[in-house]
Amino acid sequence: MAIRTNLTERFGLEYPIFLAPMGKISGGRLAAAVSNAGALGIVGGGYGDPAWMRSELSVAASESKRPWGVGLITWHATREIVELALQYEPDLFMLSFGDPRPYVSPIKAAGCVLVCQVQDVVDARAAKEAGADFIVAQGTEAGGHGASRATLPLVPAVVDAAAPTPVLAAGGIVDGRGLAAALMLGAQGVLMGTRFYAATEASGHEGAKRRIVAARGGDTQRTRVFDIVREHEWPEPYTGRALRNTFLERWHGREEDLAAALDAEIPAFQAAEREGDVDTAMVWAGEAVDLISDIAPAAELVTRIGAEAEACLRYASNLTNNPR
Amino acid sequence: MAIRTNLTERFGLEYPIFLAPMGKISGGRLAAAVSNAGALGIVGGGYGDPAWMRSELSVAASESKRPWGVGLITWHATREIVELALQYEPDLFMLSFGDPRPYVSPIKAAGCVLVCQVQDVVDARAAKEAGADFIVAQGTEAGGHGASRATLPLVPAVVDAAAPTPVLAAGGIVDGRGLAAALMLGAQGVLMGTRFYAATEASGHEGAKRRIVAARGGDTQRTRVFDIVREHEWPEPYTGRALRNTFLERWHGREEDLAAALDAEIPAFQAAEREGDVDTAMVWAGEAVDLISDIAPAAELVTRIGAEAEACLRYASNLTNNPR
Repeated sequence: MAIRTNLTERFGLEYPIFLAPMGKISGGRLAAAVSNAGALGIVGGGYGDPAWMRSELSVAASESKRPWGVGLITWHATREIVELALQYEPDLFMLSFGDPRPYVSPIKAAGCVLVCQVQDVVDARAAKEAGADFIVAQGTEAGGHGASRATLPLVPAVVDAAAPTPVLAAGGIVDGRGLAAALMLGAQGVLMGTRFYAATEASGHEGAKRRIVAARGGDTQRTRVFDIVREHEWPEPYTGRALRNTFLERWHGREEDLAAALDAEIPAFQAAEREGDVDTAMVWAGEAVDLISDIAPAAELVTRIGAEAEACLRYASNLTNNPR
Repeated sequence: MAIRTNLTERFGLEYPIFLAPMGKISGGRLAAAVSNAGALGIVGGGYGDPAWMRSELSVAASESKRPWGVGLITWHATREIVELALQYEPDLFMLSFGDPRPYVSPIKAAGCVLVCQVQDVVDARAAKEAGADFIVAQGTEAGGHGASRATLPLVPAVVDAAAPTPVLAAGGIVDGRGLAAALMLGAQGVLMGTRFYAATEASGHEGAKRRIVAARGGDTQRTRVFDIVREHEWPEPYTGRALRNTFLERWHGREEDLAAALDAEIPAFQAAEREGDVDTAMVWAGEAVDLISDIAPAAELVTRIGAEAEACLRYASNLTNNPR
């Protein structure tokens, strides 16, 4: 069984699911596991740490038996880091958060499919103009960085604005119901992050994964405090959605105080990140955490989500008086 | 042609669509037009102005040839205003924003179906316990009052928590794609407000309807300023989503200054409301305004949305390799 859309046809997938390129979480092992299960894994290049990328892209390239990709934060990317990633011959290159144009030529020249992630209709039009092969419409429910528009109304608006460029939905989708809903909105597939953060192969701390499993939907929040303490100043309009923890509760709304206290806070935060102390270290997570109830191997997740979506799509035809 | 769910079976509808009870916008004429077209119209009782309710409920009761309903703001309701509404023998009674328990007995004793609108999973469980026959899960995309969780991840979480009580989705849904998506999320139907605000029969000013048609998705915002100037102090966590206009831009973020300036601002605001000056008067509107491009008769909207949703649901079965 499988689901067929433009996306699955293009890459020979069983299910129209991309792994979101979560920085330092979507490593080579997770990306390969997702790809080998019939979806498409994307290594999270994040801010472009060359050592981490070399090691993870090597793993993805050697372990993937099917198409896989790499993603970068566009406003932080450089020509050098794009070239580095291309050396590993990914099938797909994803650029998120910012103007993709400086990198379109090298990516396309390398034969990569270009995927641009956007958060509003204006950027969707710009991505289409820039030559994106697929556009990801990311809603505010998404974990990690994003903006303010919600997935359900954003996706059809982007589908209309980007046509005929095919669109994927991201943000708030963790199960087969969300995937089937996205397809009804006109998307050709989905991008999932948080669901795969709680996968066995994800590079995050076990404590972070357990928090995601335990969390409810009201437990996440968009904030700038983790960017401030990591000295990654993001441009407007982006903020990061994370699980609420001690650090977030202490500093959210007091961003200027945090900026003034960095001498003490940065070393403490970095220690917490190393040790997996998730009371202080951030756990990026989307609003749909309350639909995540286990840590499971990525292949099992792909199969489960795909089968659930298929069941939803078959149920759809029972809802009309006019079955085919 | 039609769509069949628990909801359509219960009320004999063609399409599983409720008109949201928009205060002073969803009058008797609009509610009757929606009901007569095969969906279900709900008069917006709002804060419970007795004179307005008597006149609009009379119209709904006399013009509706099929089931119709009435809705109230729960935290502002009184036993008297509930009894007043019940005198017009609505088929359905909707309570939104607050604890429904004080009004469950009179509503059920009158033979009304009880619909409770909630904004999170905790309130969904409470509504189920209170005896709601249907629960509306309302996402933050919705126009007018609401809270912070987004529709796409909220609906399946409420479906799981409220089972077997059937759930409707609200917030960000204005077309057949949104309706079909909601059904994939496990909802039995949807509640639509903003789409019907731009219906010919809606009681709002023409200028407000034209603004909705012209607006983009980024043009709405959740705010408290219109509640402050109307001296309706809403409890936490509710805010109202409106189109950004001069008044909102001036006062949002300066709520204390507005509270101090009410002696001058209230009369100016009330004049703007009377005259339909939508630079000052609020236009409640949901985030999906960019998918609304016309003012049309309610019956045409019901038929159009229903037919589009049917097409989406039939398309769904083409997406699997395993058609029935």
